[in-house]
Amino acid sequence: MADIWGNQIRLALFGESHGPAIGVTIDGIPAGLELDMEEIGFEMARRAPGKSRVATARKEPDLPEIVSGLRNGVTTGTALTALIRNANQHSSDYGDAPDVLRPGHADYTGHVRYFGFEDHRGGGHFSGRLTAPIVFAGAVCKQYLHRFGIRFAAHVESIRDVKDDRFDPMLKWSPALDALRSQTIPTLNPEIAARMEQAVVDARAARESVGGVIECAALGLPAGLGAPFFDSVESVLAHLMFSVPAVKGIEFGLGFENARLLGSQCNDEMAYMDGRISILTNRSGGVNGGITNANPVIFRVAVRPTPSIAQPQRTVSLQRQENVLTGTGGRHDPCIVPRAVPVIEAMTAIGIADLWKERLTCRI
Amino acid sequence: MADIWGNQIRLALFGESHGPAIGVTIDGIPAGLELDMEEIGFEMARRAPGKSRVATARKEPDLPEIVSGLRNGVTTGTALTALIRNANQHSSDYGDAPDVLRPGHADYTGHVRYFGFEDHRGGGHFSGRLTAPIVFAGAVCKQYLHRFGIRFAAHVESIRDVKDDRFDPMLKWSPALDALRSQTIPTLNPEIAARMEQAVVDARAARESVGGVIECAALGLPAGLGAPFFDSVESVLAHLMFSVPAVKGIEFGLGFENARLLGSQCNDEMAYMDGRISILTNRSGGVNGGITNANPVIFRVAVRPTPSIAQPQRTVSLQRQENVLTGTGGRHDPCIVPRAVPVIEAMTAIGIADLWKERLTCRI
Amino acid sequence: MADIWGNQIRLALFGESHGPAIGVTIDGIPAGLELDMEEIGFEMARRAPGKSRVATARKEPDLPEIVSGLRNGVTTGTALTALIRNANQHSSDYGDAPDVLRPGHADYTGHVRYFGFEDHRGGGHFSGRLTAPIVFAGAVCKQYLHRFGIRFAAHVESIRDVKDDRFDPMLKWSPALDALRSQTIPTLNPEIAARMEQAVVDARAARESVGGVIECAALGLPAGLGAPFFDSVESVLAHLMFSVPAVKGIEFGLGFENARLLGSQCNDEMAYMDGRISILTNRSGGVNGGITNANPVIFRVAVRPTPSIAQPQRTVSLQRQENVLTGTGGRHDPCIVPRAVPVIEAMTAIGIADLWKERLTCRI
Amino acid sequence: MADIWGNQIRLALFGESHGPAIGVTIDGIPAGLELDMEEIGFEMARRAPGKSRVATARKEPDLPEIVSGLRNGVTTGTALTALIRNANQHSSDYGDAPDVLRPGHADYTGHVRYFGFEDHRGGGHFSGRLTAPIVFAGAVCKQYLHRFGIRFAAHVESIRDVKDDRFDPMLKWSPALDALRSQTIPTLNPEIAARMEQAVVDARAARESVGGVIECAALGLPAGLGAPFFDSVESVLAHLMFSVPAVKGIEFGLGFENARLLGSQCNDEMAYMDGRISILTNRSGGVNGGITNANPVIFRVAVRPTPSIAQPQRTVSLQRQENVLTGTGGRHDPCIVPRAVPVIEAMTAIGIADLWKERLTCRI
Repeated sequence: MADIWGNQIRLALFGESHGPAIGVTIDGIPAGLELDMEEIGFEMARRAPGKSRVATARKEPDLPEIVSGLRNGVTTGTALTALIRNANQHSSDYGDAPDVLRPGHADYTGHVRYFGFEDHRGGGHFSGRLTAPIVFAGAVCKQYLHRFGIRFAAHVESIRDVKDDRFDPMLKWSPALDALRSQTIPTLNPEIAARMEQAVVDARAARESVGGVIECAALGLPAGLGAPFFDSVESVLAHLMFSVPAVKGIEFGLGFENARLLGSQCNDEMAYMDGRISILTNRSGGVNGGITNANPVIFRVAVRPTPSIAQPQRTVSLQRQENVLTGTGGRHDPCIVPRAVPVIEAMTAIGIADLWKERLTCRI
Repeated sequence: MADIWGNQIRLALFGESHGPAIGVTIDGIPAGLELDMEEIGFEMARRAPGKSRVATARKEPDLPEIVSGLRNGVTTGTALTALIRNANQHSSDYGDAPDVLRPGHADYTGHVRYFGFEDHRGGGHFSGRLTAPIVFAGAVCKQYLHRFGIRFAAHVESIRDVKDDRFDPMLKWSPALDALRSQTIPTLNPEIAARMEQAVVDARAARESVGGVIECAALGLPAGLGAPFFDSVESVLAHLMFSVPAVKGIEFGLGFENARLLGSQCNDEMAYMDGRISILTNRSGGVNGGITNANPVIFRVAVRPTPSIAQPQRTVSLQRQENVLTGTGGRHDPCIVPRAVPVIEAMTAIGIADLWKERLTCRI
Repeated sequence: MADIWGNQIRLALFGESHGPAIGVTIDGIPAGLELDMEEIGFEMARRAPGKSRVATARKEPDLPEIVSGLRNGVTTGTALTALIRNANQHSSDYGDAPDVLRPGHADYTGHVRYFGFEDHRGGGHFSGRLTAPIVFAGAVCKQYLHRFGIRFAAHVESIRDVKDDRFDPMLKWSPALDALRSQTIPTLNPEIAARMEQAVVDARAARESVGGVIECAALGLPAGLGAPFFDSVESVLAHLMFSVPAVKGIEFGLGFENARLLGSQCNDEMAYMDGRISILTNRSGGVNGGITNANPVIFRVAVRPTPSIAQPQRTVSLQRQENVLTGTGGRHDPCIVPRAVPVIEAMTAIGIADLWKERLTCRI
Repeated sequence: MADIWGNQIRLALFGESHGPAIGVTIDGIPAGLELDMEEIGFEMARRAPGKSRVATARKEPDLPEIVSGLRNGVTTGTALTALIRNANQHSSDYGDAPDVLRPGHADYTGHVRYFGFEDHRGGGHFSGRLTAPIVFAGAVCKQYLHRFGIRFAAHVESIRDVKDDRFDPMLKWSPALDALRSQTIPTLNPEIAARMEQAVVDARAARESVGGVIECAALGLPAGLGAPFFDSVESVLAHLMFSVPAVKGIEFGLGFENARLLGSQCNDEMAYMDGRISILTNRSGGVNGGITNANPVIFRVAVRPTPSIAQPQRTVSLQRQENVLTGTGGRHDPCIVPRAVPVIEAMTAIGIADLWKERLTCRI
């Protein structure tokens, strides 16, 4: 199954970049949640293209129409469906069948998997546009979890060799984290964003693209979410992260650094603090044995450079059945990392909402 | 759900380290597969402890009894269940209730999640022992996939600062890869294993433990396995990898290196070769848009140092409700990375078997 | 989960009777299926109200817009979503909150389950209108299965005490079965339909409603679909049938008659016919041990009388918190049985498509 | 998937009649449930053969060994696995491959589905013996639900033309219901059991077998369990009932009688009683719109006559590839209805436990 996910919260994602519409159905959001549509719009605007010179010029209104599961702004408890019309289709840009397969894209694999019947226009179902309904679903899950004091934050940890600070592993929620959401390139160190932007501009000038790393934190989680083995917090979140196009790696807490360190450098010591057990450090990224330990869940994902670049690359023409050179002239982000930040946050909120609801079933 | 996973191949994993038995039920293995029990035993021996001075001295016979789904050595098509008795329980090592919570383990999170009813003895359900049935399930899936020319290989890419070579990204199957399976510490560069072993020995001498990185490859895959979004190859494999205790990171192809490179350095060019489309390099790790591209699927996982170390660490006693120091005197691997190699391979085979079967449903 | 179902074919059903739209996403339809939209429209027209004096006068255009998964009339292999706008909403008929709970409806249970946040207008998510997208999904599955020679037929077996003939249990496909689809009240005995219609008219005159039995057959199935236990053919089909509003019973083959007969009257004998094993009778309804035996799968479902009746019934007013009498003046079918026929067929096709795809995964 | 079921409670069922063992893994039982093993043994003894002259003489000790998920008699919250050894295998009764296909059994369909690799001995995976672990799982779910005041009762409603009374649709729990569990043939009217027994004895004398109807009630359910459409109470329960071998029909409340009645005869009126909304009758079987209404959930299942009968029947020999006559001399119940009663109850408890846990996730 490509397009349906979940246990307690289930998503059905649909649409193609140049089809009539894209959207998502969310099953499992409890009745009685008043949705703050302005907040949802804000989240979706964070992902929308066209905000700055580091992003594509393509305009997306991306105002979702909620066609089910909501009445008078309050969830009804039944399937919640959001629909986003594809206004800006430029179908004439595309022939009737795929021709030149773009390196680094899913053009080839989609062509094989769907036996030539794929909607290739603008990447079709593989398009980054499909992350818009994901951001919608994440925004709904955030509002659900916010009721229980759970919040999310993310920033661009690096673009090329420009590195931001990392989250304090023992991070607590503060309004400063909210400010991240308003930055075009959200960084903890305010001076870094401009350097990152320059790296992107330089890449575009070189007819190149660049990737980066996004760091995300879930805050306010109680201990006890998740499970050993198949529904570990890391399993659930990693599953969702690798469903975001262009993500090629993920690490929790010290992540790959664990491989180079000693046990005493990776363990988190514990002590009673004010009568309660505290984990004193957070090298594990808030998860032990697949289960949250009440420290922030912190992880980083690696985002590859946008495959669309202006310089020539070798590839094939399906129509002519010959080798050709290709290069992209069009409206493409040289770096999707900043726009991916709200998508990563959204997927995190979706995964945590699923685990939160599962936890409710454990009481006896 | 903690213990059941899958779509086309489903696993139900059960057992506690010091309970009567551990095991697994596998649903979805087709009828008519003759199981090579010697081969299964070989795979399980790779994971078994006590092989060398870098591993725990605990003896596990770990000979699974197959109690269902097999007749005369051939699968019947119904649920296949393997049972491993816990012979070596040492229950007297443990009190009736958990007391001192070991840093870096799931003692605390398990205690919260299961409301104090967890079987804490030897890690209970969180024990690495539960990876034995996973290796069994993986061995079955390997034999199933072997029929279609699909094979797996893995090696220890690094332990601390000792690094092996990496797989050639365009790797093809060769008998040399089989030899990896016979090495205590499987490495591509034969001289590296001894240095890794020394790093482990040094860590133990320092009352420490060490982690490492495992690199795994799935070979012989056709293009077209997997799906965009929720059942991407990366999603399915990452989900399973993070269900292996101690895994804290995963990256496919160039992985985190993508974040530092330019688009032209990450894209894989294509050309017609002998009339067929070939992907000329394998920076993507064999997956584009969540779907295999017929190149090897290659990924690396980060394994944290064993949390059990001999040196003192701060933690709490639940019985006395006070802060205490703890240190492990017992039978513990200072490095589980070599023993985790067959587990990682097994999980890969399980995930690929699920995707392989899904692919069979796509024909029209 | 209320709204998502399936293993190999998955449905996400959404919408409320008086919300903006209803619809369905179908995941798992292979790429390359050319949809005959006229045929789909025909199926949907069968279910649509307003066809005759035995049905509600409410007009539903019910022309679904396919917003994803289809290009140039051919499935792309990605999620297929159909949207039906609610044109005829009459929202002014309803207050802002539910008041008088209609006996026999889900007004009360929906109110409890959704904590008062349900969209109560016109039955909301419980409305029979939601069967329109089900018929759409079934029509798609029928076209998929038709490629393999699998076809479906159904008729009204009884309304009140007016009984049609039953299908010959060894039924084979013939064009006469297609003619059933064009009848307002599809019956095998052409004289029975008028008597059934009279029974409905009589009920309406008496300010009553009536139910009935629908008999459905799946033809052309190979032996081997389904499974013992949890995915038995009967389990999968019964699950779906009881997801159709108003269905209160189901029986396969001899069904409840089994309880009154002897073993020799219920067993189906077998013999080699033209070198192949044949099941000579079909008392089992085409299923043994949960698995198809190549005879037609035949079952009957009981449909309760429409709960909306004109005569007064005792119930409660939530607004006034007092007991009241209620009676329905509005646009309501006194008998939904004829319109339920295509819904039952559609659900059958959906279930069989799921089992068909599962069967593809069994080869070794 | 044949053998794994569930959402909030998941079962993995395994084993063959003459393999080493049968059993079940239950995932989702909360930690901290003290299991009353005597009670479990009592439930399993109800299903066990050899109790009376109406049942097979085969002896089954059927004492399950719990190999995981339980410590000191209390659930740990991880997968709970029960194993039942097959002591009484008589394998010499069976050849190495299936030969004469028994009419009414799954011999033929199992042979097709599993490509000749099925374990045919004693029905293999299709054997009624597999209902023993189901009774175990049901007994666990009963004890879980008992904490919340939910209880179950069932009786034999009919065998052939001998009919018991039916449950009062507004039934409340009373100790008399417990007494049903101790009866060999549980009936509400104590004089009926002897007549039913005579009907079975007569059938055996005539070298025949007989079926019957079982009526089951779930008591103490709150309103609000279940969901419209795919997880309706009826869908979930019917799915499980048709996973019980020999069940060929199910009806809720008035069931098929609905088809012959008028709307006013099928609706349940409502009124405020002591300030709370009450449903005054229970024609709907406790479910409206797929959701419990706080009245008892009551349904009946039709059980077909045991297919094994002593009189000759036409069938085929696979070995000789010719038509033969078969008749059963062996140890077979002429009527499995009484032994199916605890199985039906168990499946009901499993389904309700799943819905109960789902309900816990709905709060906001």
